[in-house]
Amino acid sequence: MDESSRRNDELDDHRFLRELLGDVDAGKAGPLEGPGDDCARIDASGTLYVTTDALVEGRHYDAATARIEQVAAKLVNRSFSDLAAMGAWPVRVLAGFVFGPGWGRRERQDFYRAVDGSVRQRGARWVGGDLAATDGPSVFHLVAIGEPCGSRAACRSGLEPGDALLVSGPLGGSLVRGRHLDFEPRLDFARALVARHDVHAMIDLSDGLLLDLSRLLEASSRRLGVGLGAQLDLEKIPIHDDARAQPDPVEAALTDGEDYELLFGVAQSSLGAILADSSLQGVRRIGTVEGRPGVRTARADGTTVERRATGFVHEFSDDGNPEPTRNEE
Amino acid sequence: MDESSRRNDELDDHRFLRELLGDVDAGKAGPLEGPGDDCARIDASGTLYVTTDALVEGRHYDAATARIEQVAAKLVNRSFSDLAAMGAWPVRVLAGFVFGPGWGRRERQDFYRAVDGSVRQRGARWVGGDLAATDGPSVFHLVAIGEPCGSRAACRSGLEPGDALLVSGPLGGSLVRGRHLDFEPRLDFARALVARHDVHAMIDLSDGLLLDLSRLLEASSRRLGVGLGAQLDLEKIPIHDDARAQPDPVEAALTDGEDYELLFGVAQSSLGAILADSSLQGVRRIGTVEGRPGVRTARADGTTVERRATGFVHEFSDDGNPEPTRNEE
Repeated sequence: MDESSRRNDELDDHRFLRELLGDVDAGKAGPLEGPGDDCARIDASGTLYVTTDALVEGRHYDAATARIEQVAAKLVNRSFSDLAAMGAWPVRVLAGFVFGPGWGRRERQDFYRAVDGSVRQRGARWVGGDLAATDGPSVFHLVAIGEPCGSRAACRSGLEPGDALLVSGPLGGSLVRGRHLDFEPRLDFARALVARHDVHAMIDLSDGLLLDLSRLLEASSRRLGVGLGAQLDLEKIPIHDDARAQPDPVEAALTDGEDYELLFGVAQSSLGAILADSSLQGVRRIGTVEGRPGVRTARADGTTVERRATGFVHEFSDDGNPEPTRNEE
Repeated sequence: MDESSRRNDELDDHRFLRELLGDVDAGKAGPLEGPGDDCARIDASGTLYVTTDALVEGRHYDAATARIEQVAAKLVNRSFSDLAAMGAWPVRVLAGFVFGPGWGRRERQDFYRAVDGSVRQRGARWVGGDLAATDGPSVFHLVAIGEPCGSRAACRSGLEPGDALLVSGPLGGSLVRGRHLDFEPRLDFARALVARHDVHAMIDLSDGLLLDLSRLLEASSRRLGVGLGAQLDLEKIPIHDDARAQPDPVEAALTDGEDYELLFGVAQSSLGAILADSSLQGVRRIGTVEGRPGVRTARADGTTVERRATGFVHEFSDDGNPEPTRNEE
């Protein structure tokens, strides 16, 4: 092997990425330096949203079965889903990739191409980051920077008693056929929603409806200084086809996680216009915010059950291997 | 054990961090939401610099010997050093932490406190991020967002033929007594420098003088469309005390890396004012940019040697364990 074909290191990858990513000219966020400097530059005027999210081998994907393009898409789309949850649109990303064994040159280059493709597909650009190696499981971080689509951010803390609770699409069973790898972040839905309607609070459903709903309620309760709760109408919760073969499809919709649909609250007075908006297809009203703590699920016959905030949580351990687990808030 | 003391998961840590970090009010970068939402909000007007850097257990620190406070400080200071290299000052950070086994609740909380302390020490605030678990080595990412200290960014690509090359302080031996864990990023130096002087190009010395110099030369050559090189005057390179016990202290200063001093180029006409500036103590001129490719080291007797860009590079491998290694560009 000659010198150049033996080259298989960080510098080699920096050169590859410089070619792949190119220079970034003036865009929506203003002129910005491409990769290859110590920092990326963003000339911003107004509000930016910044999020970072991790994909951990063995936790968020199975290296034995997930294709490289799926790992790349999930990495990008998880962060983009966080932007959607704020009513923001992605403009720039930075990457922090720590490759474990098994990521040869070809695999890394395929991964870079797929990440860049997912980013460009939404009109955003990959502008910087960091590469490193580990002899353990790979860890990929993506930093996504977005701009608001509407005049007001959709924070978690804006729920009011009496608000209607809605979701952007069907829930449950995301692990059954690998939808957690192939989902589409609800950027278009969020843009249409916040551009035309007044959204009190929003979150993307990554860890399960009950757990993520509890996050909206907790943040809003803190802001208001009173304990908010909610009632969910079980028969109105849209069930994804992937969940229909589950032992309890409704329970799957409530707790599975990785749906990456949006959960949001609006005033009752906004409800009609939202349900009638043709660009918000699939939107469903599933419940109501209440002025007392706790989440209750109601059957069609009017009986209700108090629920705990069950969902997907990373468990840490003092003694041995931490394991991802279902946990109760 | 009662319910609350068994709790040792992501949600528990989110609550701890919410208390620790608090809400972030209007600051230099404008009002910004504290942690606990899907994204951090930055109301920016003008230029921002964004960087992300990783600390990988077993690569950037040894879990058996490094104290938690040292790991935290190194994580923060590496990213802040990247901001210094652009002539920027940190205002906000986001964290992406993936904890391996051995990080119990107390260790994680100590780590959070130390990271927050290092960030606040420079007037910046920790405003968001992501927590996860792995059963492999821990991987910590920090995203640092900064504002420019001067009117012009100090990119890598601005060198001109004839420029003087300077460093902010002594080099070499950073691993000998653990200085790589305890260094101070040169933020104050950079701020004083770019506020009062015209810096053509700058980089922080993380991977070794020869390798990082080659990065300045490569970026500047690309911009100019001609091959730039440099001559370094060996007897002028400041040697750190930590390198004096090395077999070849000058070679250590040229290639050791993790110095986190700044290397920068200025016009000859700026040189006198910089060397006379009392707020730039320790600054040394070490060489000159030349209009032909390659880096040459010159002895006091006038003899020169052509040098390759040796330094610290992450090596990736197709077949087995990737190893960090010295490599040649």
